[in-house]
Amino acid sequence: MIDVAIIVRPVGRVDSPLIDLDQAPKQGDEGAPDAWLVFDESVSEGLLDLRVGMDVLVLTWLDRACRDVLKVHPRGDPARPLTGVFSTRSPDRPNPIGLHRVTIVAIDGLRLQVRNLEALNGTPIIDVKPVLDPGTER
Amino acid sequence: MIDVAIIVRPVGRVDSPLIDLDQAPKQGDEGAPDAWLVFDESVSEGLLDLRVGMDVLVLTWLDRACRDVLKVHPRGDPARPLTGVFSTRSPDRPNPIGLHRVTIVAIDGLRLQVRNLEALNGTPIIDVKPVLDPGTER
Repeated sequence: MIDVAIIVRPVGRVDSPLIDLDQAPKQGDEGAPDAWLVFDESVSEGLLDLRVGMDVLVLTWLDRACRDVLKVHPRGDPARPLTGVFSTRSPDRPNPIGLHRVTIVAIDGLRLQVRNLEALNGTPIIDVKPVLDPGTER
Repeated sequence: MIDVAIIVRPVGRVDSPLIDLDQAPKQGDEGAPDAWLVFDESVSEGLLDLRVGMDVLVLTWLDRACRDVLKVHPRGDPARPLTGVFSTRSPDRPNPIGLHRVTIVAIDGLRLQVRNLEALNGTPIIDVKPVLDPGTER
């Protein structure tokens, strides 16, 4: 099954002051700066109905990750035992998709400013979805 | 930016009694059956540390979706106004990645049985991540 290839095309890019891995926090609520999501004009209609104040899930492609890693020390801490990547949030994994819950703080055309995004500058954006908390439905 | 192509390789497939779209519920907690996640042997080490009872996020590639759709009637209801896909959970979107929160109910080697998965039989699995609820960390 591993021979089937799926083609994903980025719908935008992250514009962030985070430029290298050493600066990046492990999770967005651990001190990540505000960042801009810059979308391609071809998907502008998909952005309709996003509003300031909404929480959304941003899916990114962590293009600086290692894809041949299956076990990691969680949070890069060698004191923690090696753990299967599917039990961790490590960016290193066969398909390095980042999943980020962020709050929209400003909208300017094809650009959305969001709070708490730990992705590096230039990271491709591949999807945006509303948060589905229990009891909400759309 | 839209010209850059990212190659995703499935790490497994969904084995489910759901075989067509008409049967599938809109969300996993709306009556989806139990299903098996069948992983490729090449990623078996990544599965270590997954345990019965854990809640995980399963990312799938919704291979029967339409990728040129940017506005939809939410939940397929024509009475609802057309809405930008990034504000909905519609499977039809530029990169049709499914995001499913499921509970692991059994493990048998490369096969994980999970509760509440609304994906169709044969759907490619592209990633698995632990649920990060506020206050938990791994």
